[in-house]
Amino acid sequence: MGRMAINKERLWARLMELGEIGKQISGGVTRYSFTPDEIRAKELVAAYMKEAGLAVREDAAGNLIGRREGTSPKAAAVLTGSHIDTVPDGGMFDGALGVLAAIEALQRMNELEVRNVYPIEVIAFTDEEGSRFGFGMIGSRAVAGTLQPKDLEQRDEQGIAIADAMRSAGLAPERVGEAAKPPHEVKAYVELHIEQGRVLENLDEPVGLVTGIAGPLWQQFTLIGQAGHAGATPMQLRRDPLQAAAEILNYIYAEAKKYENAVATVGKLKTLPGGVNVIPGEVQFSLDLRDIDEAERNRLEASIHAYSQQVCERHGIELQIEPLQRVAPAPSSSAVQEAVAQAGKLADLANLPRLASGAGHDGMQFSSLWPVGMIFVRSRGGISHNPKEWSSPEDCAAGTEVLYHTLLQLANEDKGSF
Amino acid sequence: MGRMAINKERLWARLMELGEIGKQISGGVTRYSFTPDEIRAKELVAAYMKEAGLAVREDAAGNLIGRREGTSPKAAAVLTGSHIDTVPDGGMFDGALGVLAAIEALQRMNELEVRNVYPIEVIAFTDEEGSRFGFGMIGSRAVAGTLQPKDLEQRDEQGIAIADAMRSAGLAPERVGEAAKPPHEVKAYVELHIEQGRVLENLDEPVGLVTGIAGPLWQQFTLIGQAGHAGATPMQLRRDPLQAAAEILNYIYAEAKKYENAVATVGKLKTLPGGVNVIPGEVQFSLDLRDIDEAERNRLEASIHAYSQQVCERHGIELQIEPLQRVAPAPSSSAVQEAVAQAGKLADLANLPRLASGAGHDGMQFSSLWPVGMIFVRSRGGISHNPKEWSSPEDCAAGTEVLYHTLLQLANEDKGSF
Repeated sequence: MGRMAINKERLWARLMELGEIGKQISGGVTRYSFTPDEIRAKELVAAYMKEAGLAVREDAAGNLIGRREGTSPKAAAVLTGSHIDTVPDGGMFDGALGVLAAIEALQRMNELEVRNVYPIEVIAFTDEEGSRFGFGMIGSRAVAGTLQPKDLEQRDEQGIAIADAMRSAGLAPERVGEAAKPPHEVKAYVELHIEQGRVLENLDEPVGLVTGIAGPLWQQFTLIGQAGHAGATPMQLRRDPLQAAAEILNYIYAEAKKYENAVATVGKLKTLPGGVNVIPGEVQFSLDLRDIDEAERNRLEASIHAYSQQVCERHGIELQIEPLQRVAPAPSSSAVQEAVAQAGKLADLANLPRLASGAGHDGMQFSSLWPVGMIFVRSRGGISHNPKEWSSPEDCAAGTEVLYHTLLQLANEDKGSF
Repeated sequence: MGRMAINKERLWARLMELGEIGKQISGGVTRYSFTPDEIRAKELVAAYMKEAGLAVREDAAGNLIGRREGTSPKAAAVLTGSHIDTVPDGGMFDGALGVLAAIEALQRMNELEVRNVYPIEVIAFTDEEGSRFGFGMIGSRAVAGTLQPKDLEQRDEQGIAIADAMRSAGLAPERVGEAAKPPHEVKAYVELHIEQGRVLENLDEPVGLVTGIAGPLWQQFTLIGQAGHAGATPMQLRRDPLQAAAEILNYIYAEAKKYENAVATVGKLKTLPGGVNVIPGEVQFSLDLRDIDEAERNRLEASIHAYSQQVCERHGIELQIEPLQRVAPAPSSSAVQEAVAQAGKLADLANLPRLASGAGHDGMQFSSLWPVGMIFVRSRGGISHNPKEWSSPEDCAAGTEVLYHTLLQLANEDKGSF
């Protein structure tokens, strides 16, 4: 990589400084939304935005927004950003890097007096993680206009409702609707984030182009057979739900591997009654299916259901499948993907590797409203939501350089419209 | 079935009378060893033995023994019997039927003045179930001469040791070695018991010939891989121990089905950490393998271990296999099997179906000492260790008729010697 537009040292110094707020003895960071630590972090980020020469404001949902005007100030804005809240004892990079990278990119545009036709806004979104209230992406839902008044009734472990926490932070929850951006005022949204996986590390690449965010589909499978004595029941007379479950699991894994972007996880499995010498009477397991393409995910889901039904019939097992959650995937728009790919070349990174995001991000809230896309920065060991979360100064800078060029692409060309 | 030698009504009346001792509100029976209910049950059984014309004594281990002399009184004895202790809230048939059937058979030999060369002894063995002290087959171990003084140090939930419980029941635990039978004094052991499974019900047969008692081999499998975010880790980069476990389970079931008498059960399986959206880092499962032929069981075990190792290597998973228990199977002797088969014909049952016993029984203690064998009576629904345990009066009588002829076969011919 040759000479960079962005200032790598300033970016890293801000990351380290922000990472001190809410730091735990473990070295991890805890910043729950609307707490004193999160408010201090926002104050620091607002100061960086001002240093960057941006016009700073807070919207009705607590989103912190820094704006650089374009030469056509009434044009739709290019949005970028991420979040500065964290999971308990999380890392310094998850969310924070995306906000600080965007500020760095805009600060360099000002310092270098680079021209952009469309305005650019960097947003630090309120409570992406959902760690405090069990309900996340509060700020991005507000910007999308999909946050409902009853959502704000959800409570944290101390019984404090989101609306009350907002009030104690000086916000007016009844005005949260004002945070919604009319879609015609937005040209595109692009977010830089750490990968939180091992794909880029495995490819030995610092930065990746995200093809989409794979929405999770969660289901609970219950297989009911007949419990019995492990010794007194020959194999031929059994209706053992774990025999059926093992066949279903094998099928799930084999099928998911046939898809380009699908992942299938059975994270919980238990047998009842659970004695060493008792044939299980019941098996319960969870299924987490993800794909960036909803039709592909539906096709995989349908084949798993059909196969499971057939296996259970053969074993004399009753099958129940309960829905737990079904989040629509958010494929990246081709216009934003093109801008990121072009930016990778301008940043001397040749062809950026393409990968899907398995974890959810704020951009999911916007994918039906305006073009969205993401840039991933390599995570050491794929570790995230953990004090050991780490991306090197070089990788953070490389990703920020790609973001810088992507924002200029989107803010100067017609790319990014629907 | 034509006219029977044995008295079906008397047998059934005694079963019902004995079943009242220790009866619970549920209808189930609880008779732990050395408790007042068990002592009352032994007194009732001793009374039946006297009615049957047997010489009654209690040995040093609390085994209750009724003896019918043979015409050659110094000859080795044919032993029969079972136990009268129960699991908590168990059934009226498990154990009790074998003791009462043997008494009925001997009473009819006396009433019909049938001749037997070898003496016959019916034994109600002390504590077969192991429910009180977590250590069973106390009486049959004593008769086999394998009960160790330190075995009697095991304690129940109230902290009472077996030795103390024996003392409180009027026994002298230090003399327990006197209960051992020198092998040359025993010609054979045959026991009637309810099946506790569904094989005979499935075949629509009242009585079966037991080919052997399948000893349980218990092992704990631990598969260690790498936990990760369900979304952020593509299928190709996973080291998911549940993927390996599913393949191993499928293999275990498919292989066990290839064996005539093997059964394989995975009763417990759990995933760690156990989150819906977390790829398991570890999977633990139990394996219960049984066969009446130890070489066959060893062959199945070896193939499962080899396959498991290979699958885990392919998935990058660390495999640990810990032993939990390894009980040797007790195949029925061919001499006792022949006697039972012949007895089936004499009882007008044509060819008795042959089946393995998956559950353990007192005869296991003797299989390396003298010839052993068993007769099974059909269990309704295969249900046992449960208030709903049931065998019909007709099936109990049919099994007892087979026992009667078996005992006469063994006590009059040279069959049954090694």
